[in-house]
Amino acid sequence: MVDITNKINTLRVATAQAIVKVSRHETIEAIKNGTVPKGDVFSMSKAAGLLGVKKTPELLPDCHPMPIEYTGIDYTINDLEISILCTVKTIYKTGVEVEAMHGASIVALNMYDMLKPIDKGIEIQKVKLLNKKGGKSDYTDRFR
Amino acid sequence: MVDITNKINTLRVATAQAIVKVSRHETIEAIKNGTVPKGDVFSMSKAAGLLGVKKTPELLPDCHPMPIEYTGIDYTINDLEISILCTVKTIYKTGVEVEAMHGASIVALNMYDMLKPIDKGIEIQKVKLLNKKGGKSDYTDRFR
Amino acid sequence: MVDITNKINTLRVATAQAIVKVSRHETIEAIKNGTVPKGDVFSMSKAAGLLGVKKTPELLPDCHPMPIEYTGIDYTINDLEISILCTVKTIYKTGVEVEAMHGASIVALNMYDMLKPIDKGIEIQKVKLLNKKGGKSDYTDRFR
Amino acid sequence: MVDITNKINTLRVATAQAIVKVSRHETIEAIKNGTVPKGDVFSMSKAAGLLGVKKTPELLPDCHPMPIEYTGIDYTINDLEISILCTVKTIYKTGVEVEAMHGASIVALNMYDMLKPIDKGIEIQKVKLLNKKGGKSDYTDRFR
Amino acid sequence: MVDITNKINTLRVATAQAIVKVSRHETIEAIKNGTVPKGDVFSMSKAAGLLGVKKTPELLPDCHPMPIEYTGIDYTINDLEISILCTVKTIYKTGVEVEAMHGASIVALNMYDMLKPIDKGIEIQKVKLLNKKGGKSDYTDRFR
Amino acid sequence: MVDITNKINTLRVATAQAIVKVSRHETIEAIKNGTVPKGDVFSMSKAAGLLGVKKTPELLPDCHPMPIEYTGIDYTINDLEISILCTVKTIYKTGVEVEAMHGASIVALNMYDMLKPIDKGIEIQKVKLLNKKGGKSDYTDRFR
Repeated sequence: MVDITNKINTLRVATAQAIVKVSRHETIEAIKNGTVPKGDVFSMSKAAGLLGVKKTPELLPDCHPMPIEYTGIDYTINDLEISILCTVKTIYKTGVEVEAMHGASIVALNMYDMLKPIDKGIEIQKVKLLNKKGGKSDYTDRFR
Repeated sequence: MVDITNKINTLRVATAQAIVKVSRHETIEAIKNGTVPKGDVFSMSKAAGLLGVKKTPELLPDCHPMPIEYTGIDYTINDLEISILCTVKTIYKTGVEVEAMHGASIVALNMYDMLKPIDKGIEIQKVKLLNKKGGKSDYTDRFR
Repeated sequence: MVDITNKINTLRVATAQAIVKVSRHETIEAIKNGTVPKGDVFSMSKAAGLLGVKKTPELLPDCHPMPIEYTGIDYTINDLEISILCTVKTIYKTGVEVEAMHGASIVALNMYDMLKPIDKGIEIQKVKLLNKKGGKSDYTDRFR
Repeated sequence: MVDITNKINTLRVATAQAIVKVSRHETIEAIKNGTVPKGDVFSMSKAAGLLGVKKTPELLPDCHPMPIEYTGIDYTINDLEISILCTVKTIYKTGVEVEAMHGASIVALNMYDMLKPIDKGIEIQKVKLLNKKGGKSDYTDRFR
Repeated sequence: MVDITNKINTLRVATAQAIVKVSRHETIEAIKNGTVPKGDVFSMSKAAGLLGVKKTPELLPDCHPMPIEYTGIDYTINDLEISILCTVKTIYKTGVEVEAMHGASIVALNMYDMLKPIDKGIEIQKVKLLNKKGGKSDYTDRFR
Repeated sequence: MVDITNKINTLRVATAQAIVKVSRHETIEAIKNGTVPKGDVFSMSKAAGLLGVKKTPELLPDCHPMPIEYTGIDYTINDLEISILCTVKTIYKTGVEVEAMHGASIVALNMYDMLKPIDKGIEIQKVKLLNKKGGKSDYTDRFR
C-alpha cells in the first residue's frame, strides 16, 4: 500500500462511466415505466452503487479507507445504451478514481442482475474514468 | 428477491470474462517480471477476486447468498490485452453468473488499481458472461 | 450459539413489521411524488432492507448464517404512518424471525435517514414479529 | 448522498434510545443473574452495538463513512422495560444521529435474539433520537 | 479455491486454542471482578469471536462460505495464562479448522485490545488446532 | 469505546510479528518455487493481510475506525520458520498496534490455510507487537 502519511489533503473529484447495453426496446420501456419485476432499476441500482463506493477498500487490497464526502449516480438513456456516471468527492490525501469506477461497475452489475429475467442479451461495456481533479495530475478523457 | 424455496439444487457453473487493456508493452513486462511496485498483480488480483465473488450478495440487493463451492481465476495475455476468466460453481437453486461477473470485474479493477502508478492509459473493457450451465437455460456466448 | 447440527430443514417464513411515523402530510406527498431530495424513498429503502436481511449474522453474534431464499419488502401508508412489512423465507434448520425484524428495522432507519432533511419529527415505532411459520412453534401476533 | 466537502468539522454528539419490553419478571432476573443460556445479555449486546454503530454506512446508502470517536451503551431497567441508550461522538462534518439510532436498534435486536429462547413475548418499542449536539440545529426530545 | 462440488456433506467439528498471557495477577483479578474499564472481557470477546468465525470466508480468499451450525467459546485461567477454546461445527463438504482458528485468534486479539490499557505486557501465544472430526483425516494434537 | 474526541492527531506507526512454522523443508521449497496448488502464498497472504488490517474495527468492538495510511507486509524465512512483519501507519488520535497484530494474524492464518493441503504440521506461533511510535508511550519489544 502506498504510504500517504506525508501527503496533504486536497479536494479530489472523480467521475467514472459504465455502459449497460440492453437488447430490446421493451427493456428500456420496462425501466422507464417501473414494470421490471424486481423493482425500480435506477433507484435500487443507485442504492447499491452508493454502498459499493464505500466498500471499495474492503475489496481492493491497496485502496486506502477514505472519507467519502459525496457520491452521485446519474443515468442517461441513448437508444439501447444506458450510460451510468458515478461521481465521488473527498478531501483527502489520495484520489477517488478507483472508488468511482467501482461504483459505476456495481451499478452496472446490479442493473444486469435486475434485468436478466426480462432480457437475456444485456452487456456491460467499458468501465472507464472520465475525469478526475486534485492531486498531482488532473485527467480528462480526451474522447469525451 | 426471487422466491427460490420451490427450486431444486443442481450443479451450476458460470464463466465470465473481463478484458483489461494496458497502453504500453512495458506494463505487460512489469507484470510478467514481478516488478510492479504494489506487488504481484496476478496473484493479488486473484485473491481480491476470490473474496469478491463471495461478497456479491453483500453488494447486489437481489442476489441470494450462496454456497460458493469453487472459484477459479485465469489470465491470458494477448499483446496489450489481458483476458480475465472467472469461473464459479455451486450446487444450489439459482445460478452463479452474476457472481462470476462480479469476480471478473473485481479482478479487473484491482489490476487497474495496481497498475495505474506505472500506466495512465489502462482501460477495463467488456465484462461479459461467456457461458453458464445448469438451471433452465444453458447459455453460451455465440461469438466466443 | 445454539447447536443446530441435529435439526432438520423445514420451510421457515417470518414477517416483521416496523412503523415509521412522519410529522406532516407534505412528507407523505413528497414520498409519493418522488420529490424527496435523496431519491426514491421506498425503492432505495427496499434495497437497503434486502441487503440488511443478508447481513444479520454479521451483526448479531448468535445468529446462524442462512440461505436467505426470499425477502420481500412492502409498504402501506395510513395517514401519517407508514407500515413496513419484511417477509423472509428459508429452508433451513432455524427460523428467520430475527432476520425479518432486522430487515424491517433497516428499512425504517433508511427512511428516517432519507427523510430527516425534510421532516424533523419522524419516529420509528414498534419493530415487531407479526407471524412465523415452521419450526416447533408457529406464532401469530394476537393483535394483528 | 449530500455533498459535505464544504462543511467544517465540529464536535457532534447524539444519543438515541430503544426500549425492549420483556413479558415476565423471570426474564429480568435471568439477565441480572447471568443465567440466560446464550450468555451475558448486556455485555454481548453492547459488543454488537459497538460494532453496529461502525457498520451504519455499510447498511444505509446515504450515510457518510465517519470517524466514530466514541460509542457508549447504557442500560436502565424499569420493571419489565429495559431502556438502551446509545451515545456516539465524532468530530466531523455531519452528525451521528442515525449511527446512534442504528446502534440502539442493534442492541435491542440482539437482546431480542438472546432472550427469545426464554421469553416469547419480547417487544422492541420506539427507537428514537433523544438529543444531538453540533451542526446547525441542536435537538432535544421535548418529552425526555 | 478447491472445487468441492463432488464432496458429500458430513458432520465436521474442529476445536482450536489460543493462549493469552497477561503480565500481572491484577489483570486476572480485574477480568474476574468485572472491573476492566472497557467492560466484561470474556463476554465481549466471545461476541467478537462468534462474529469472527462467521467472517472467516470474507478474510481468507480460499475459504468456502459455510453453514456455521455451532460455535462455542470457552476460557480456562491457569495462573497468568488464559486458554481460549473455540469449537465450530458444520454439516458440509469441507472442514471448519481454519474457522475455529480464526475465532480463537479474534477472541485473543480482542482480549489484548480490552486489556492493554491496564496491562502493557500481554502476549498472544500459539494459535493451534487441537482436534477435528469428519472429512478424510481426523486429527488430534498429540500433546494435548 | 475510549472517547478520543479530545486527542490530537500524531503520526502513529506499529509493527507486529507472527511466526508460521512449517514441518518440512519441502513446504518452504514449494512456497519459494511457486508450486503450492492454491497459488502464490506470499502474494495472496499479503493481499489478505492488507484487507484484514482495514477490517479490524469491524471485528473488534472497541477499535476506532481509522485512516489506514500505510500497510506493509514483509516475510523472512529462517529454516522452517517464516516471520511475518506487518507495519501500519496512520496520522490519527489513537494507535495502530491492534491493527498491525490483526494484519499479521490474518497473514499467518491465510498461509496456514493455503499450506495445509501439503503440510499437516503447520503451527502459528506468537503474534506480538514489535514496536510502536507516537502516542504517549513509545514501545519496543526488549528481546527483539
